[in-house]
Amino acid sequence: MRVGIVGVSGYGGSELLRLCIGHPAFEVVYVGGASSAGQTLAERYPALAGLTAGKLAIQPFVPESVCGVDLLFASLPTGKSREPLARVPAATKIVDVGGDHRFVEGWTYGLTELPGQRERIRGAARVANPGCFPAAALLPLIPLLREGLIGPEAIVIDAKSGVTGTGRGGASDFGFVETNEDLFAYGLEAHPHVPELEAALTQVAGRKASVAFTPHIVPMARGILATCYARSKGAPTAARLFEAAQSCYRGEHFIRILPLERGRSPHTGWATGSNLAFLSYALNARTGLVVALGAIDNLGKGASAQAVQNANLMTGQPETAGLAGLPLWP
Amino acid sequence: MRVGIVGVSGYGGSELLRLCIGHPAFEVVYVGGASSAGQTLAERYPALAGLTAGKLAIQPFVPESVCGVDLLFASLPTGKSREPLARVPAATKIVDVGGDHRFVEGWTYGLTELPGQRERIRGAARVANPGCFPAAALLPLIPLLREGLIGPEAIVIDAKSGVTGTGRGGASDFGFVETNEDLFAYGLEAHPHVPELEAALTQVAGRKASVAFTPHIVPMARGILATCYARSKGAPTAARLFEAAQSCYRGEHFIRILPLERGRSPHTGWATGSNLAFLSYALNARTGLVVALGAIDNLGKGASAQAVQNANLMTGQPETAGLAGLPLWP
Amino acid sequence: MRVGIVGVSGYGGSELLRLCIGHPAFEVVYVGGASSAGQTLAERYPALAGLTAGKLAIQPFVPESVCGVDLLFASLPTGKSREPLARVPAATKIVDVGGDHRFVEGWTYGLTELPGQRERIRGAARVANPGCFPAAALLPLIPLLREGLIGPEAIVIDAKSGVTGTGRGGASDFGFVETNEDLFAYGLEAHPHVPELEAALTQVAGRKASVAFTPHIVPMARGILATCYARSKGAPTAARLFEAAQSCYRGEHFIRILPLERGRSPHTGWATGSNLAFLSYALNARTGLVVALGAIDNLGKGASAQAVQNANLMTGQPETAGLAGLPLWP
Amino acid sequence: MRVGIVGVSGYGGSELLRLCIGHPAFEVVYVGGASSAGQTLAERYPALAGLTAGKLAIQPFVPESVCGVDLLFASLPTGKSREPLARVPAATKIVDVGGDHRFVEGWTYGLTELPGQRERIRGAARVANPGCFPAAALLPLIPLLREGLIGPEAIVIDAKSGVTGTGRGGASDFGFVETNEDLFAYGLEAHPHVPELEAALTQVAGRKASVAFTPHIVPMARGILATCYARSKGAPTAARLFEAAQSCYRGEHFIRILPLERGRSPHTGWATGSNLAFLSYALNARTGLVVALGAIDNLGKGASAQAVQNANLMTGQPETAGLAGLPLWP
Repeated sequence: MRVGIVGVSGYGGSELLRLCIGHPAFEVVYVGGASSAGQTLAERYPALAGLTAGKLAIQPFVPESVCGVDLLFASLPTGKSREPLARVPAATKIVDVGGDHRFVEGWTYGLTELPGQRERIRGAARVANPGCFPAAALLPLIPLLREGLIGPEAIVIDAKSGVTGTGRGGASDFGFVETNEDLFAYGLEAHPHVPELEAALTQVAGRKASVAFTPHIVPMARGILATCYARSKGAPTAARLFEAAQSCYRGEHFIRILPLERGRSPHTGWATGSNLAFLSYALNARTGLVVALGAIDNLGKGASAQAVQNANLMTGQPETAGLAGLPLWP
Repeated sequence: MRVGIVGVSGYGGSELLRLCIGHPAFEVVYVGGASSAGQTLAERYPALAGLTAGKLAIQPFVPESVCGVDLLFASLPTGKSREPLARVPAATKIVDVGGDHRFVEGWTYGLTELPGQRERIRGAARVANPGCFPAAALLPLIPLLREGLIGPEAIVIDAKSGVTGTGRGGASDFGFVETNEDLFAYGLEAHPHVPELEAALTQVAGRKASVAFTPHIVPMARGILATCYARSKGAPTAARLFEAAQSCYRGEHFIRILPLERGRSPHTGWATGSNLAFLSYALNARTGLVVALGAIDNLGKGASAQAVQNANLMTGQPETAGLAGLPLWP
Repeated sequence: MRVGIVGVSGYGGSELLRLCIGHPAFEVVYVGGASSAGQTLAERYPALAGLTAGKLAIQPFVPESVCGVDLLFASLPTGKSREPLARVPAATKIVDVGGDHRFVEGWTYGLTELPGQRERIRGAARVANPGCFPAAALLPLIPLLREGLIGPEAIVIDAKSGVTGTGRGGASDFGFVETNEDLFAYGLEAHPHVPELEAALTQVAGRKASVAFTPHIVPMARGILATCYARSKGAPTAARLFEAAQSCYRGEHFIRILPLERGRSPHTGWATGSNLAFLSYALNARTGLVVALGAIDNLGKGASAQAVQNANLMTGQPETAGLAGLPLWP
Repeated sequence: MRVGIVGVSGYGGSELLRLCIGHPAFEVVYVGGASSAGQTLAERYPALAGLTAGKLAIQPFVPESVCGVDLLFASLPTGKSREPLARVPAATKIVDVGGDHRFVEGWTYGLTELPGQRERIRGAARVANPGCFPAAALLPLIPLLREGLIGPEAIVIDAKSGVTGTGRGGASDFGFVETNEDLFAYGLEAHPHVPELEAALTQVAGRKASVAFTPHIVPMARGILATCYARSKGAPTAARLFEAAQSCYRGEHFIRILPLERGRSPHTGWATGSNLAFLSYALNARTGLVVALGAIDNLGKGASAQAVQNANLMTGQPETAGLAGLPLWP
C-alpha cells in the first residue's frame, strides 16, 4: 500500500510517520506539510537521516496531486481539511485524523470498537477518526450505556490531557515555563468535542445523551485520562459494570479492562506510544453515581494509532498490522 | 510568639518553617522530626546555613517537653497525631495540619473563610486545619450552597493534585520516573477526605450533602485544582454564581474570584507558595450542572499557609502577618 | 524609594515585581512593557487582583517619562536597552538586568561579591547586572583565581540552565512538548556571555583568561548549575580550595559554601526564589583538574534578586532588604 | 532463539522485554526478578494483559535453571551479577547489561561500534555491555583519538543523565518532588564508570588516557548527553573532526553524525526508545579545546537496545533485528 501523510510536521503527523515507516505493508510515498514544506524528512526528523524515507521531501499539500497514493492520512488543524480533502481523487482513500468530518454525511466515524462500527469502516473510503477526548471517554461509557446500566443524561466527563492534545499549532501557547508545574481547565463554555461526544453516546443509548465536558491541560506531553460520572440505573454491582465492559470488548486487541480490584485505576503512562486503551469502573455508593475511567495515549488510540487501525481495515490488512509495538515505559 | 513545628522534615513542615522564619512576630524555638532527628536545620536545609534558625537541632517529638512553646504546628502523618497531641501541655496552642482532628470534639475546624468560622478560630486553642482537597473544593462550593443555588446531593468533586499532596512519606511511592509523564486517579472507593467534605458541606447547606470525590495525581510538585459539578437550583445565571462568591468572600484577603469572562479558568501555578485561592464558575446549559473551580497551592491554602493564618488569629496577630509574599511565578 | 520596572511582563520583570512589592522600602510606581502595555498588573498577574499594585497600568516604555522614579530596573531583551536607557533622566538610577551594558564605559559591573565591587556599586548611578551564566560560574571560580590555585587559561565552563534563562521572548522556541524530556547544548560556537566571563576572570587573575563555555537547556523552569574545570596550580588540597572560598566570601549573606565532604554537591533546587549561591569544589586527582561548582536561581542571583541587592546598595538600604525570604522548596 | 531476561522489573529489564517481545527471532521464555517474583508479567506490566508473554511468571533467579535458554540478558544491580552469572550453564550465552564484567577476563566488551569490536562480539558467548555514560562519551571521542586529533590526557567528560540512569533501585532516592525542578552533579570524587572510560580510551589512543568525569542528574526519565572537552592536536579544522567521525562510522546503522553547521547540537529527545546515537563536534578557538557531544537514550544505546544489538551478533541474526523502530517523539 502506498500511503501519504498530510500534516507531517505536527504531533499527530510525526506519530503517523513513525507508525507507517514501521508498518509491514505500508510504504510512505508522499508527505505534505505547511511550515516544513521544502525540507526533507531527515532535515525535520534527525532520526531519519540515512533511511530511505528520510530522503522524501515535504510537499505543500496540493490535493489533486496525491493521485498515486492508495490511502492518505490527513492530520490538519481543525477547520482546515474540509475544502482540500474534497478535492482528493476518489480513488485515494482517506483517514481524516482532524476534526472536520466527524458525524458528517459521506464519512464513516472511525471509533473501531464502537459496536457495529468495524464493518462500516471496512467498507469505507472516507473515515473520520474520533477526537482524542471522545476516544478516552466513549470507550469506558459505551458498554454501560449499551446495557442500560447508566442513564445518558447529564454525564460528567472530566478529562485531563497532555499538551500534545492541543496540536503543534495550539502548543505555541504552551511554553515549557508556563505549562510545567501548572494545571488548569479550559473551554468551560464550549468545546468542539461536545457534539461528537453527544452524537456517539446518543447512538449507543438510543435516546438523547447530554454531557458536561471539562478538558484540562496537565504538564505532560502525551496521555489522556477521562474520568466520567453517570447516574446508575437498576442498582448494578461493581462486578456488573466490569462484566458489561468485558462482554462488549471480548476479542478486542487494544482494550485492556483492569481486573476488578479495590482502587485499581488506569494510568496514562501505561499506553504511551501504543493503541491501547485501559478501562476501569467504580460505584460510588454515597451518590449512586458510576465512575468510568479511560486512559489512552492521545496520539495513539486518540489519533494516529487509531488512524492506522482504521487504514488497516479499509485496505484489507490485519487490523493490528504495524500496531503490535508495546508501550514505551518508562 | 514562640512557635514550634513538629514534622519539620516533611513537605508541610518545611513550608511551615519557611513561613515562620519569615513571619514578623514568630520565633521558631522548637523543631521536631522523626527521620531527621539529630540533624540541625542547616544540615537538613542547606539554605539555612549561616542563619540563626539553622543552628536549631531537630528533636524527637516528646509532647510534654514543648512547654516553652506558645503555639505548636503539628504536621504529622495521618493517624499519628491523636495520641501525642493529647499530651501537649494545655498552655501550648496547637494547629494540627494533619488529618486526625477534623470535625473532632474539642477541636475547631480551621477553614477560616467558612462563614462564621473565623471567630471560632480566634478563640480556639486547638485548631484542625482543613485537608488540602477539601480546601480547594469547599471554597468554590460554599457560596453556592449557602445561597441555595445548587443542591447538596451527589456533588462530583474531581480533584487533581501535585505530588506533595501525598506527603513526604507517601511520596516514596512516587518516584520521578514513575510519576513524570503519567496521570491517574486513586482512592476510587474511599478517601479520608470524604467525611470532612460531607461534614462541611452539610453544615453550610443545612441538610445532608453527598459527594463523589475522585482525587488524581498530576506530574507536578505543588497545586490542587478541584473541578466540582453540582445540580443547579432555581435556574441561576452565570453572573449570579459569581455574585454569590463575591458576596460571600467580600473583604477576604486570600480569595481571588476570577472576573466573569468566557472561559476564564484558574491555574494552580498562580498560587504557588502563597495562601491564595482562585475561584471561578460556569453554567453547563446542556445538563443544568454548575461547574465550580478552585485552585490553590496544596502546601499553601491547602496546608501550611492556612495554618499560619489560623495561628495569627489564635494569637492575636494580624491575619495576614507572614503571608503577604506573592506567589512564585514562574 | 520610588522604583520602576521596565520589561515587567518578562520572567525577570515579573520576579522583580514580586521582590519589589515585598520590599520594605520600595514602592513600585511605574511599570513598563511592550506586549502587555495597556493591561493593568492585575490583569497580567491574577495574584495581584485586589492589591494596590494591581491597579498600576503597564505603560509603553518612554524613557523621558520616568522622571518621578528614583531607581529603574530595566529587564529588556539583549540589544534593546542601549538606546532607550541613554535617554533616562540622569536623576533616575538604573540597574540594567539585561546584557547591553556589562563592561561598558560609564556602567559599573554588578556582581556584588566580586572583591572590591561592592564599594563601586554603592557609588554608582548606572549598574549592569551580571549575566545569569556568569553569576553561576564566576562565584565559584573567583576565589581560586584570586589565590592562584588555578590557571586562567582554557577554563571549561559547562553550564546547565532552566528554560527561563532564555527569556520570555526566547522561550517561545521552547514549547513544553519539545522541551520536556529533552536536553541539549546550544551556542557551541559563540555566546554573548563569553566576553563577560573572560573580562571578569581576567580582572581577578591579573592576566588573560580564556574559557570554553557550553550552555545547555534542561527541562526545568528555574536554576543554573555551572560545572567548571580548571588546571590546578601548586598542587592544592581539596581543603585548600574550600578555604579559599570561605576566606573570599567571609561575611557574605548570600553565599553558601558547602562543607568539605565526599561528594557533596550543590542543587539548583536549593536556591529557587532566592538570592543564594551554593558553591562546592573537588579535586580530580587523575587529571590535575579542579572542579568548581556553582548553583543559583537564574532569576534570583542570576537576575532579579541580584538586581535588588545592587539597588539596595545604590540607594543606601540594608543590602539584604527585601531579600530575606527563604527559597521555595519543594 | 529462546531468550531469558533477569532483572525484568528494573528499567533496563522492562526495556529489554519490550524489545525482545517485538523481536522477529526472539521468544522470551524466561523472566527473572527479585522484588516482583511470583507475579506474572501481565500483573507487573498491564499492557501485556491478553498477550502470550503476559502469562509468563517472574521467577526468582536460579542460574542453573535457565538451561533451556539460548541467550540470557542480565540486568542486575552493580555488584550482584558476578557470582550468579558464573553459575549459568556454558551453553547459554549471556549479555550482561550491568557493570560487573566490563574489561574483565573472559568477557568481551560490547560497544559494537568500537573499531574491531564487532567481530569479537560475534564470536563471544559472554558479552559485557558498555555503561550508559561510557556509551554516550566514547562514541564521539573514539574517532578523534583514533586519528590523533585530540590528546588522551585530561579529557573532561561532563555528562547529564535522566533519572532512569540510576536504575530502579537507585531511583528510590529520586522522588518526583525532590527531582523535578532540580539539577545536580554527583560522584565528584569517584564513579564506577571511570575505569571503563579510561580503559576504552586507552585502547583506542594506544597510550594512557585520563578523564575528569562528572555525571549529573537532570529532571527527565530517559536520555544522556555527554559534553566532552579535549585538547586538540595538530590544529584540526571543524570539518576535519566531522570527517574523522564519518570515516570511523561509515555504514553504521545506529550512528547519526549531525551535519557540520553552526551550532547544530544533538538532543537526547531525538533518541528516545531507540538504539541511535547522535554525535556532533565544535572547535573552541579561544582555548584550543575540541568539544565532542554524544546524545543517546540511556536505556537504548546505553543499555537494552545495545544489548539486543550484541545478542543479534552473538546469535547470527541481522544486526538490526528488532531495533528498527523509530524513536518516540514527542
